[in-house]
Amino acid sequence: MNNYKQAIVVRKDLGMGAGKIAGQVAHAAVLAAEKIRKYNYEWYTSWLYEDDPPQTKIVLKVNSAEELIKVTREAPMEYLTFIHDAGKTQIAPNTLTCIGIGPMPNEAIEPIIKNLKLL
Amino acid sequence: MNNYKQAIVVRKDLGMGAGKIAGQVAHAAVLAAEKIRKYNYEWYTSWLYEDDPPQTKIVLKVNSAEELIKVTREAPMEYLTFIHDAGKTQIAPNTLTCIGIGPMPNEAIEPIIKNLKLL
Repeated sequence: MNNYKQAIVVRKDLGMGAGKIAGQVAHAAVLAAEKIRKYNYEWYTSWLYEDDPPQTKIVLKVNSAEELIKVTREAPMEYLTFIHDAGKTQIAPNTLTCIGIGPMPNEAIEPIIKNLKLL
Repeated sequence: MNNYKQAIVVRKDLGMGAGKIAGQVAHAAVLAAEKIRKYNYEWYTSWLYEDDPPQTKIVLKVNSAEELIKVTREAPMEYLTFIHDAGKTQIAPNTLTCIGIGPMPNEAIEPIIKNLKLL
């Protein structure tokens, strides 16, 4: 079993296509990992190298910006990465599209994400 | 204009849903960035911090494993990250789902991806 996890929470109300969503989630995953690498190197390396499987990620959904912001209130800002789209393609500039949480220990992240559904 | 880019190339023939694709692309983005961070730190930091916009990513598609492998033959192995799914949910174990390329300079990555379509 893995002991660390990263969660990415995506807004489903923006009408983004599968490729757009994948790009936004990838942004969140990279930047959130980079943030935790600086903030808590032990969490970062534990997540990166743990067995079965390493780098566990979970992609979750919400239906509005308000719901997304509500989720963020359950977590310290140090654990959160906010992704705003430049808005050159499918959506308006500076739209909040998703957030990255962690990677962090399961016991710390589970209470934050417990009410969210898988994308 | 940005000078660096990361590409993720996804197989569209596996019937993966939007959430599954997003997770696989996120794996590729994080691991490919980590690989380049070790292999060429200047490329990594240039991509991570460049302006307008930073951390450019492009998500592309192919229709088979063979097509994906053909793409990889255009690039040195040092630039490539292969993502195989554990196969616990939607697809068979150890299926090659996508690859990450770079981040690397545009002039080096464009020839590798020039024939691929956006996801």
